[in-house]
Amino acid sequence: MEYVARTMREIALFIDRVAERLNAGQVEKLLDALISSYKRRAKVLVMGAGRSGLVGKAFAMRLMHLGFNVYVLGETITPSIGRGDLVVAISGSGRTKLIVTAAEAAKKVEATVAAITSYPESPLGQLADIVVEVPGRTKSAPDIDYFARQILGIHEPLAPLGTLFEDTALAFLDGIVVELMNRLGKKEDDLRAKHANIEF
Amino acid sequence: MEYVARTMREIALFIDRVAERLNAGQVEKLLDALISSYKRRAKVLVMGAGRSGLVGKAFAMRLMHLGFNVYVLGETITPSIGRGDLVVAISGSGRTKLIVTAAEAAKKVEATVAAITSYPESPLGQLADIVVEVPGRTKSAPDIDYFARQILGIHEPLAPLGTLFEDTALAFLDGIVVELMNRLGKKEDDLRAKHANIEF
Amino acid sequence: MEYVARTMREIALFIDRVAERLNAGQVEKLLDALISSYKRRAKVLVMGAGRSGLVGKAFAMRLMHLGFNVYVLGETITPSIGRGDLVVAISGSGRTKLIVTAAEAAKKVEATVAAITSYPESPLGQLADIVVEVPGRTKSAPDIDYFARQILGIHEPLAPLGTLFEDTALAFLDGIVVELMNRLGKKEDDLRAKHANIEF
Amino acid sequence: MEYVARTMREIALFIDRVAERLNAGQVEKLLDALISSYKRRAKVLVMGAGRSGLVGKAFAMRLMHLGFNVYVLGETITPSIGRGDLVVAISGSGRTKLIVTAAEAAKKVEATVAAITSYPESPLGQLADIVVEVPGRTKSAPDIDYFARQILGIHEPLAPLGTLFEDTALAFLDGIVVELMNRLGKKEDDLRAKHANIEF
Repeated sequence: MEYVARTMREIALFIDRVAERLNAGQVEKLLDALISSYKRRAKVLVMGAGRSGLVGKAFAMRLMHLGFNVYVLGETITPSIGRGDLVVAISGSGRTKLIVTAAEAAKKVEATVAAITSYPESPLGQLADIVVEVPGRTKSAPDIDYFARQILGIHEPLAPLGTLFEDTALAFLDGIVVELMNRLGKKEDDLRAKHANIEF
Repeated sequence: MEYVARTMREIALFIDRVAERLNAGQVEKLLDALISSYKRRAKVLVMGAGRSGLVGKAFAMRLMHLGFNVYVLGETITPSIGRGDLVVAISGSGRTKLIVTAAEAAKKVEATVAAITSYPESPLGQLADIVVEVPGRTKSAPDIDYFARQILGIHEPLAPLGTLFEDTALAFLDGIVVELMNRLGKKEDDLRAKHANIEF
Repeated sequence: MEYVARTMREIALFIDRVAERLNAGQVEKLLDALISSYKRRAKVLVMGAGRSGLVGKAFAMRLMHLGFNVYVLGETITPSIGRGDLVVAISGSGRTKLIVTAAEAAKKVEATVAAITSYPESPLGQLADIVVEVPGRTKSAPDIDYFARQILGIHEPLAPLGTLFEDTALAFLDGIVVELMNRLGKKEDDLRAKHANIEF
Repeated sequence: MEYVARTMREIALFIDRVAERLNAGQVEKLLDALISSYKRRAKVLVMGAGRSGLVGKAFAMRLMHLGFNVYVLGETITPSIGRGDLVVAISGSGRTKLIVTAAEAAKKVEATVAAITSYPESPLGQLADIVVEVPGRTKSAPDIDYFARQILGIHEPLAPLGTLFEDTALAFLDGIVVELMNRLGKKEDDLRAKHANIEF
């Protein structure tokens, strides 16, 4: 099981290094937009495809625990959004077709779009109002190992496809949750009280 | 954004420490069961509630990329399972009611149950054929900070509820994916070829 | 394509006959519970397994369009429920294990449980506070063709497994939606305004 | 509860009338494509947004019971598709943005696209290789009551938005299932054997 532990250490190292390189200005803009949404009871709509979509759902669940008016694209009770609402779109490459199409639709109805992506120059990055760069290797980029090489100092990471982006995006958004807890004065018990008690 | 980076470093440290403490015997049993399922084209059914369920889906997606005959409890095309099939159940506490009920049902139809949990003595741990301990803080355990204190050497982690378990379970299962790639002789391009090309 | 049209006519006939046989007292209790939930902004949690779960989601989406505070078991942002909240559980047989377990959990936290089922004497029917009988053939009942024979006057329906229950439950719940529109004074434009504008 | 029964009867009448008006040539093309997919073990990918997506999932579940190699867009284990695979796209208006985008992507990878829609001249209808017209009122069409007026002979149906299309599409696809059972020589017990035994 040598590769199991090595991969975990690689992921841990990557998350640790990205924590040092976050762009504080970008992160503060995202925090401001989230806190403003919370205070105005505006809707927050989270979207992502594939494993990035699962990371988005994990974040959305915590926003619900924090008392946000949050929804996930594609789930049953997701309502219409509009001006003043916030879309959080997660895509390593920033090129996932259906997410770009959905983000364009969000812009058309005048929602604010925040992108979590490795590529600020991507179609998603360019149309977004707020961009937070989370490095990662993406499954399709031509310079596929650029970030991994630069950040881990190795030629080729063990973790395949978008794994490093996805796991790092999850840790980053979990960091956003802790920051929100502190800024909104929420304790763990506040979150626990909202956590589904009939869960699946 | 001090808490964002601190939380990411805490998660990274936790994953790194757990990588050192994995029980090799437990992990080898899980790998054997997975590789046997792959070779026999047996079904693998992944299940978990809440954020643990999302971690399970992220793992199931990679098993699909690897060519496994894998399904997720609760999705549309999940078929019946039986003797010779493998259930992978993810629950930090090992007490989530619907997951324990589902795992009992799996045992009744003579499937093999592998549990990923922080508590081998939990109801899920006790009924499972294979248990892999992944430490974590769980949202309801009485000794709630035991693992965090022991592993991180701190009094109380920043990350709320089951976050440390969930993020570590994701990194652990991503490590399992890399180990399977090596043992099954799969390259990243093999995974990419199976990755959804119409994705949402 | 003879069977396509014949099956559609069978389903239509079944829905039509069930419309005549609804128990008005049962239906009024369900309507009262729903309207009370709407007025108190109480939570409504919809649950069902398999195709009955899909029928439940179709109903939940319309309740959202009507302005209800509605959630679906198993989706990302489903919160905790408690006293004063309403669970709508859909199960033809009333015996689906995970739904009965979830309904028991709902009773334990003192929520009101309304069951849509063909079998009032089933475990789900017995624990429910409100039962609405919707006839149907169920996939496992011993008297499997009882309802179909009695209602359609034929020996064996064409539609397999739980199809007649599921399609009839959908039409019934769509009837509940129209009744709620009338009682709550909602127009189609009110529903359209809440309908997701970024939809998947 | 007058509106409950009236709406059910309206839905039943609509399904019954549509059964008479199906275009046999269109339906045979869909059946041929499905049976060919079954025999070649080709992939069938079902997609739809909102309630049409739920109808698609109900159909996909039955295709799984019949032994098809079927997937649903947006679920965890959905793989890549290509030449020789079949996409079944369900959209009353034929204009749902994300479904049209996904169907375009399917055409680009040379999959066959079958559309279930009320509007053959819609963007979805025009790009599809196979179109089956299922009348219905759609939530956004300008001639919104055309079908309902023509088919039901009434000025305005009770059922709001896309309800008549969705419920009729479900009954139609359930008819397709019965036709496939007959053509593939499948009995109800064959379906039951594949039905999920750990269900949610």
